[in-house]
Amino acid sequence: MATMTSPLVVFTTDFGLSDAYAGVIKGVALSINPNLRFIDLTHQISPQNVAQGSFLLGLNHRYFPQDTIHVAVVDPGVGTDRRPVLLSTPWGQFVAPDNGLLSGVITEYLDSEPESAGPVGLPPNLFAVHLTNPDYWRRPVSHTFHGRDIFTPVAAHLSLGVAPEELGEAIDSLFYLPMSRPVSEDGIVTGQVIYQDTYGNLVTNIPAGDLPASGSTEVRIRGRSIFGLSRTFNDKSHIGGDGLIALTASHGYLEVALPNGSAADLLTAGEGEAVQVVTASG
Amino acid sequence: MATMTSPLVVFTTDFGLSDAYAGVIKGVALSINPNLRFIDLTHQISPQNVAQGSFLLGLNHRYFPQDTIHVAVVDPGVGTDRRPVLLSTPWGQFVAPDNGLLSGVITEYLDSEPESAGPVGLPPNLFAVHLTNPDYWRRPVSHTFHGRDIFTPVAAHLSLGVAPEELGEAIDSLFYLPMSRPVSEDGIVTGQVIYQDTYGNLVTNIPAGDLPASGSTEVRIRGRSIFGLSRTFNDKSHIGGDGLIALTASHGYLEVALPNGSAADLLTAGEGEAVQVVTASG
Amino acid sequence: MATMTSPLVVFTTDFGLSDAYAGVIKGVALSINPNLRFIDLTHQISPQNVAQGSFLLGLNHRYFPQDTIHVAVVDPGVGTDRRPVLLSTPWGQFVAPDNGLLSGVITEYLDSEPESAGPVGLPPNLFAVHLTNPDYWRRPVSHTFHGRDIFTPVAAHLSLGVAPEELGEAIDSLFYLPMSRPVSEDGIVTGQVIYQDTYGNLVTNIPAGDLPASGSTEVRIRGRSIFGLSRTFNDKSHIGGDGLIALTASHGYLEVALPNGSAADLLTAGEGEAVQVVTASG
Repeated sequence: MATMTSPLVVFTTDFGLSDAYAGVIKGVALSINPNLRFIDLTHQISPQNVAQGSFLLGLNHRYFPQDTIHVAVVDPGVGTDRRPVLLSTPWGQFVAPDNGLLSGVITEYLDSEPESAGPVGLPPNLFAVHLTNPDYWRRPVSHTFHGRDIFTPVAAHLSLGVAPEELGEAIDSLFYLPMSRPVSEDGIVTGQVIYQDTYGNLVTNIPAGDLPASGSTEVRIRGRSIFGLSRTFNDKSHIGGDGLIALTASHGYLEVALPNGSAADLLTAGEGEAVQVVTASG
Repeated sequence: MATMTSPLVVFTTDFGLSDAYAGVIKGVALSINPNLRFIDLTHQISPQNVAQGSFLLGLNHRYFPQDTIHVAVVDPGVGTDRRPVLLSTPWGQFVAPDNGLLSGVITEYLDSEPESAGPVGLPPNLFAVHLTNPDYWRRPVSHTFHGRDIFTPVAAHLSLGVAPEELGEAIDSLFYLPMSRPVSEDGIVTGQVIYQDTYGNLVTNIPAGDLPASGSTEVRIRGRSIFGLSRTFNDKSHIGGDGLIALTASHGYLEVALPNGSAADLLTAGEGEAVQVVTASG
Repeated sequence: MATMTSPLVVFTTDFGLSDAYAGVIKGVALSINPNLRFIDLTHQISPQNVAQGSFLLGLNHRYFPQDTIHVAVVDPGVGTDRRPVLLSTPWGQFVAPDNGLLSGVITEYLDSEPESAGPVGLPPNLFAVHLTNPDYWRRPVSHTFHGRDIFTPVAAHLSLGVAPEELGEAIDSLFYLPMSRPVSEDGIVTGQVIYQDTYGNLVTNIPAGDLPASGSTEVRIRGRSIFGLSRTFNDKSHIGGDGLIALTASHGYLEVALPNGSAADLLTAGEGEAVQVVTASG
């Protein structure tokens, strides 16, 4: 859809909101293209948690218009030789460090997911550039804040119509960081909590597709059992130990929740906690 | 005032800012109407605190232009049979769950406030619609995130000029949740803290209008007494126990504060704490 | 650069994001000029910490376009006789209380920094106005929220082309609050931590320019010693006690950091902590 609207830049970072970092990058962008509009997907990725940023970006980028330019910065290796890159996809362009942060996006275009971390070849509908042309950077470039000095300026120039090829050299692979996946053995699926949301809901890495369409299901976490899946946060038909429920929430993954409370607080559980699903076919 | 500006959507939710929820709904809105502009009133209503959302929305919606479209989502009953609704008022349109969240807005148009929770008939200058037409929703609709799948898409379609009648069926009552009100007996007004702000100021439910225009006033909270009302946070003429002051702040309600400190921390008090005002006419 | 874009208002406040204050002021601004655009530099200055606001504003305002209008509100004296002011500079206009909050901006235009707090005469390229004309305020003006009732309305009217002279009386001095500066004695520079960022990095008041260009450097903090400066957060060539590193980060000041961790948590140190730099010329 062609529109006359201002280009949109979406930020996903671990900058937090208490410092000025998230404001400064918008000032830098507007100093290059005064017509830009911004949305914060979030600036509160856990500090330096590349895997979490990758997960949220993969999960959410398609909610934005297809011509969105994303600036993604979770960058513990800033100033080292990890590459700054641009990735063009059928659903958005992404400016980011090449440290695995784009894995959640890339994985949607792969036939099969790589099992270990390392370079992954890009399929034909993706196009990547190693950002090496300093003409499109802010100067001087610091060693510690490439979000301000490289990623955001490059995004702003992109929004003005600069061709990706101008920004550096085309590359045919990017660094890939596999998401932790559940394992299945003897009818038991063992996964883990990968994310704890604002409400204290515990999001696991067990996709809805791995759950049985029928039959009884038992979800186990920290010694509690929940028999059956709820449909909503208010569905009281499958209350488990301590009032917990399990459901597949809007993101498509199994989630453990406490209606009107925080499952994370109740269980003192967070990222990494083991979760098991036991199924007896019905 | 007619303007050529982009329509404005204002969000009031309990989504928090650490997850991607608050970003995703903006992407969904822009995917429907790329010309929208957004302001966050706040995404940090206490989780599932419908009463707090109602209070803040009632207090603050008139600071926005009259043609603002509000999306308000504090929705513990998401996925149940609580209705999604649109409320059109002379000062803004509101898309929200019908769970009492709009009570603070509705109350401004009622002759008298209902004393108990339940349906309230709408006066002639308000118009409400039960949102039943899925043509204006995102599909598939999840059971757990109607902010993304129903409320925000409906607001975006509204901004494009879709008539309210298109969105569902007109209804003549909405669910009303009365605000806790102070009680007055033997010259003593007893209210409670309904809100603790960023500074640790304790906002009560005692309106300025209930305080004496003249005469001496004693404010009591957690065993401390404050004699007289201060005019500013720096007005030292009425310092009470532990350095506390009382004043009617910008929102029009009595507030207990600690100059250059946090009254909430000092008193270890928060929502629900009893506050008394004793007046001796002067 | 002349653009047809909407005027930009940038906010720097201690309002936080959990209350509605930061949303309300945008509604007030749009009610005056519906074409405004907003960026939050941050709303999370520590409550009433004027010095921190001054530091962040001085450090960051030049990342925004030169015609930016800044609204800066850290205002413990709201409602007292501290003056509301407008400061016009070659790089932005600032609406703020006259309590030292603009010192970080003003200092860039002074030949020498005042040593004590008090009024400072303005150089010829700065122009200030005491905001005394209530025609450009919101009415009624509260005693406790001038961000909503004076500063933001004045900024919105400015954006519509109202001349500064219309807003009040020209003044030739503003209140200045000196930043704490490091002292140098016997080859030892003693400064302090002035800011702790999201990552737990400890930002000191020791500017990069005060550090030796060559020779060995020892940074001391809370009993730990770090020998030599790192270039990036991943530069492991100068690891000090407990894994700490020291570097001059993107803001131009010496910073103590813990790679992939929080130096603030490790040292249980924050604002005010002493930091020493000992240099042996090489």
